Amino acid sequence: MLILMDLNAPREHIEKVKKKIVAKECTPHEIPGSRKLAIGITGPSGNLSIEDFLGMDSVDEVLRVSKPYKLVGREMKPDDTVIDFENASIGGEKLTIIAGPCSVESKDQIFEVAGSLKELGIKFLRAGAYKPRSSPYSFQGLKEKGIEYLADVKRELGMKIVTEAKDTHTLPLIAEVADIVQIGARNMQNFSLLEEAGKIKNPILLKRGLAAKMEDLLMSAEYILSQGNYNVILCERGIRTFETHTRNTLDLNIVPVIKKHSHLPIIVDPSHGVGIWDKVTPMAMAAVACGADGLMIEVHSHPEEALSDGFQSLTIKNFKNLLEKIEKIASVVDKRIDNEEIQISN
Amino acid sequence: MLILMDLNAPREHIEKVKKKIVAKECTPHEIPGSRKLAIGITGPSGNLSIEDFLGMDSVDEVLRVSKPYKLVGREMKPDDTVIDFENASIGGEKLTIIAGPCSVESKDQIFEVAGSLKELGIKFLRAGAYKPRSSPYSFQGLKEKGIEYLADVKRELGMKIVTEAKDTHTLPLIAEVADIVQIGARNMQNFSLLEEAGKIKNPILLKRGLAAKMEDLLMSAEYILSQGNYNVILCERGIRTFETHTRNTLDLNIVPVIKKHSHLPIIVDPSHGVGIWDKVTPMAMAAVACGADGLMIEVHSHPEEALSDGFQSLTIKNFKNLLEKIEKIASVVDKRIDNEEIQISN
Amino acid sequence: MLILMDLNAPREHIEKVKKKIVAKECTPHEIPGSRKLAIGITGPSGNLSIEDFLGMDSVDEVLRVSKPYKLVGREMKPDDTVIDFENASIGGEKLTIIAGPCSVESKDQIFEVAGSLKELGIKFLRAGAYKPRSSPYSFQGLKEKGIEYLADVKRELGMKIVTEAKDTHTLPLIAEVADIVQIGARNMQNFSLLEEAGKIKNPILLKRGLAAKMEDLLMSAEYILSQGNYNVILCERGIRTFETHTRNTLDLNIVPVIKKHSHLPIIVDPSHGVGIWDKVTPMAMAAVACGADGLMIEVHSHPEEALSDGFQSLTIKNFKNLLEKIEKIASVVDKRIDNEEIQISN
Amino acid sequence: MLILMDLNAPREHIEKVKKKIVAKECTPHEIPGSRKLAIGITGPSGNLSIEDFLGMDSVDEVLRVSKPYKLVGREMKPDDTVIDFENASIGGEKLTIIAGPCSVESKDQIFEVAGSLKELGIKFLRAGAYKPRSSPYSFQGLKEKGIEYLADVKRELGMKIVTEAKDTHTLPLIAEVADIVQIGARNMQNFSLLEEAGKIKNPILLKRGLAAKMEDLLMSAEYILSQGNYNVILCERGIRTFETHTRNTLDLNIVPVIKKHSHLPIIVDPSHGVGIWDKVTPMAMAAVACGADGLMIEVHSHPEEALSDGFQSLTIKNFKNLLEKIEKIASVVDKRIDNEEIQISN
Repeated sequence: MLILMDLNAPREHIEKVKKKIVAKECTPHEIPGSRKLAIGITGPSGNLSIEDFLGMDSVDEVLRVSKPYKLVGREMKPDDTVIDFENASIGGEKLTIIAGPCSVESKDQIFEVAGSLKELGIKFLRAGAYKPRSSPYSFQGLKEKGIEYLADVKRELGMKIVTEAKDTHTLPLIAEVADIVQIGARNMQNFSLLEEAGKIKNPILLKRGLAAKMEDLLMSAEYILSQGNYNVILCERGIRTFETHTRNTLDLNIVPVIKKHSHLPIIVDPSHGVGIWDKVTPMAMAAVACGADGLMIEVHSHPEEALSDGFQSLTIKNFKNLLEKIEKIASVVDKRIDNEEIQISN
Repeated sequence: MLILMDLNAPREHIEKVKKKIVAKECTPHEIPGSRKLAIGITGPSGNLSIEDFLGMDSVDEVLRVSKPYKLVGREMKPDDTVIDFENASIGGEKLTIIAGPCSVESKDQIFEVAGSLKELGIKFLRAGAYKPRSSPYSFQGLKEKGIEYLADVKRELGMKIVTEAKDTHTLPLIAEVADIVQIGARNMQNFSLLEEAGKIKNPILLKRGLAAKMEDLLMSAEYILSQGNYNVILCERGIRTFETHTRNTLDLNIVPVIKKHSHLPIIVDPSHGVGIWDKVTPMAMAAVACGADGLMIEVHSHPEEALSDGFQSLTIKNFKNLLEKIEKIASVVDKRIDNEEIQISN
Repeated sequence: MLILMDLNAPREHIEKVKKKIVAKECTPHEIPGSRKLAIGITGPSGNLSIEDFLGMDSVDEVLRVSKPYKLVGREMKPDDTVIDFENASIGGEKLTIIAGPCSVESKDQIFEVAGSLKELGIKFLRAGAYKPRSSPYSFQGLKEKGIEYLADVKRELGMKIVTEAKDTHTLPLIAEVADIVQIGARNMQNFSLLEEAGKIKNPILLKRGLAAKMEDLLMSAEYILSQGNYNVILCERGIRTFETHTRNTLDLNIVPVIKKHSHLPIIVDPSHGVGIWDKVTPMAMAAVACGADGLMIEVHSHPEEALSDGFQSLTIKNFKNLLEKIEKIASVVDKRIDNEEIQISN
Repeated sequence: MLILMDLNAPREHIEKVKKKIVAKECTPHEIPGSRKLAIGITGPSGNLSIEDFLGMDSVDEVLRVSKPYKLVGREMKPDDTVIDFENASIGGEKLTIIAGPCSVESKDQIFEVAGSLKELGIKFLRAGAYKPRSSPYSFQGLKEKGIEYLADVKRELGMKIVTEAKDTHTLPLIAEVADIVQIGARNMQNFSLLEEAGKIKNPILLKRGLAAKMEDLLMSAEYILSQGNYNVILCERGIRTFETHTRNTLDLNIVPVIKKHSHLPIIVDPSHGVGIWDKVTPMAMAAVACGADGLMIEVHSHPEEALSDGFQSLTIKNFKNLLEKIEKIASVVDKRIDNEEIQISN
């Protein structure tokens, strides 16, 4: 259910409404919008009726929400969600570029890549310290050591860190350093992890699972929002189909579909989506052209030596080339790359 | 097998090579390139050996082709195929826009749509006269009457006609009128139809089947080329996956993949690919951004009255809007819309 | 629409109803059942109303059919379709075994396999003379010669022939010899071929396409029935999914689903379904256990020398072993192998 | 790597080999077989060479394992794994039936179902206390209370308990009560949970993920074995494909494929696989016919009142009917239902 109130409703009117919701064992979610203040309600749906709120002070309208997802839907919040960071933001007119290697491999390696990316104006560094791998015998990341190096990069280069939490156990440690906590595709329906992610303050980057329908992705995001963390960034990274010409089938169709059904920003990871470096640039361009709010790109100073996913990583040079092309596409769709100081055209 | 000869090889040297091929019950295919003249060989592979041709006049090199597809592959012909029409061409630097209704419904209807499209500079009109439909009880097209109306449009408005042949029986009639003969997704592996399509002169637009891997699509094109018709345009129009948020899953990844493996032009049909009109524009933009040679778009003067596929058709107004956006994206990828006289910006 | 009449309705009452249907440009289909005589109606649905038939002599009930498929549905005909041949039948309590090599390769080869199968009591021989192949350079079958050899087998060994028609052009020739005409998976939506198949008398074996949903398969069968050929046998032979451990994913779930929605018999082809000979026996057993009306099995006297699909063919010895196991499973589901004179247990 | 030793090798010879492995920072896994004692080695593959072990006492052979999975593979252990319980076993000639409701809903409900099942001789009761649900607003299970009721059933009725652990946090509590700990399809690649499951003693029932290839499933099992828990039961429960006639596409093909590549038992859950109760019985029969080691069936005393998945649950009466049919199929494949005292035929 959704209660729409005057934007200028006095605090006491709002609190009265929220109190009534809590009294019925439901949870109120304040969602400020451009024209109205909405109070979303989640919890046992049978406990409340529209009549309970009609006629209350500052209440304009009370609506049933028809979709299975509530807080992530456009019905609840028509305006795009924009997530603000110090000196950056995700969503709206900004096009966010998150770049970096698959894994932190050593202090030297991560500083080398990060330094090169910073020179290109990149604000968000991606790199995994805890790596979920299909095989127990594959490189599983540098773990605590990796987080430590990322903290060093953050402090010394001033970059924002995007890194994955693969379980509830390591989430608190990661949340201390990460500006954005990533939840990977294989964990998209790890509901315990989603709930914990909903209880921290960090924005969450939620990757779509290999077999997740659009609605599954939104329901997983709903888990996070329902716990009080409204800063979720969705990420398309390829689904599993019969086609084997690419590692996965990057499903760009979901971008305009999500834009219609949800207010959350959605970015695209073409590196995992196609899995071969020479297809990354055209698919990144396509992603921006169809409305994505950002890109997540694997970049490595020496892809041929990478401990994981080297074949899908761009070199710094190829990445710079990609940025130039993306910049032009962005302008066609009225977006602007959110870069520190773009020096990519020389 | 592939024989590379001097570009300026005298005709008699070429004929001598071809004669030797025919003598072994194989078929020679002359493929002029920018640096070499290639003679592709198809047929019983065991009959010929590289040694048979080494030392022949004007023969530079003889190669085994390692892929299952031969004539459609880049190994055989490194240069992009460009298909020339009077006053138009497909492939290379041109971005081709093919537009029109799903079906010819009446003389008035097709002239109304075609007239509007012509005003926008569109050269290629698409419209089905013979419609393959899942149900025997659905509208199957106006058939001969439809072809007649398309001939009228061609004569009176000077537009080029793209229309589907759904069987070998009607192919000759269609080939008389069509500038491009379309083979639909459900017929992509109708090998008898492919063979007949290989024997006519008209360029063929071959749509990817719902369950076709990249290689399946190329092998089906190979059927056409192997019969002597080298003018094939591939078309991505969505594959069938578990995802139901769009009618099909438009697989744009195939565009850069095809570009790498084949010299044939590839266009994208986002209307069938997504199946909902409001997703057509963003996905059309994405298609151009990742390198497609053209678009095939369903446009109807009155989509709500269409006899088939109305929900995925654009209005003239929305289509004009799409053209404006496509024009900008095209310039980023160094392509130019191949329009008659573009008047879309006023 | 469906008109239910007395089983003993006099011919004149029936003709009166049919006349009325024809007068409205629709087509009547007489469908005798165990309790009622049904007249199914196909054609422009708006032309007729229930009231047109109420009160007519011998008319008991008039019903709207709610499914997109009409003639193939259980609503129209609650009883299982049983297709009768001289000395054999398909559907009902019979379990039909169709066996043979992928292709006719030579007169000796087909007589050798057929002879061995006949000794095992097999009545239906499968073998392709016209082979649809993904590559134009693969063996395409012996064509007319192959049909000739099949006619020889039929005459000399008295076996019933199941062979594929891949186009309308060769259909008449094939229909002369074939006891059952097969339409392959790639042609499942070749609607022109389906229509022609609906105009001949031979029973049709319709294979499910790689991307066909249950409803697509039924709609394709509907094409055949709507032309007047009610003897259609459906065949599951694997769908295309992400899984690559088998050539295709044999979808046995469709067997009980079809049994619920349609009265047509359904058989299973595990050879194409899994594509590796050693998985054929367990999946054949599973097919019978879940209710299939028959099996289509690739058997070759010398699989290692087969010109096509040798790796999925059983040897005579393995096939005999399979028959023994199938016989036991059949008895659990109250079916009986429809064999000439079973001598498989010695 | 795999070291094959004499079955009767003295303990000191074995320990000497294991010591050498540990010295190189690898892990030895003792795998007793019918003809040889195998010592599997996992860990950094480069550290050891075959020569390190040749010539050591009681060592017969040293082999490289060519598959990405090691401990779960037939190469490492040719004999089928049989998991022993007090008064029951899974694998080998036994056909195990695990039955029960989707969730524990109340003490009365679980005792009612469990009592009915016990009367039918069922030894293993399935029921979820912690339920992973797509929506945060759906019933999430009775949690601790549910585990408590399951402990009551175990104590009072003597049934073995199969229940799901959805995170590492609740795993220890569940492991105290569960005879088999289930890991659900959505957690199949929750590697942290798999690792913890590898450290407990309870046998693990690992369900295949919706998009998991055969190899992915085996690699996830490998995670568990690599931590020292060798008692893993695999479970097929449907994959996600384009087909929507069933909730998921139960992929029985994986049963014979797993049997070839792995020594682990594999059971089938047709209830989740097809998602509609009336298809459960035929697919359960098919599963047994193709070689499954057991079935997991949803049974509810009052499916229409179930808090979750009622539409796919069998009534007690239908389940009894299923057991009768399964018993007959089992005998064809030389298996025997592992029931307490079968009284299902009266």
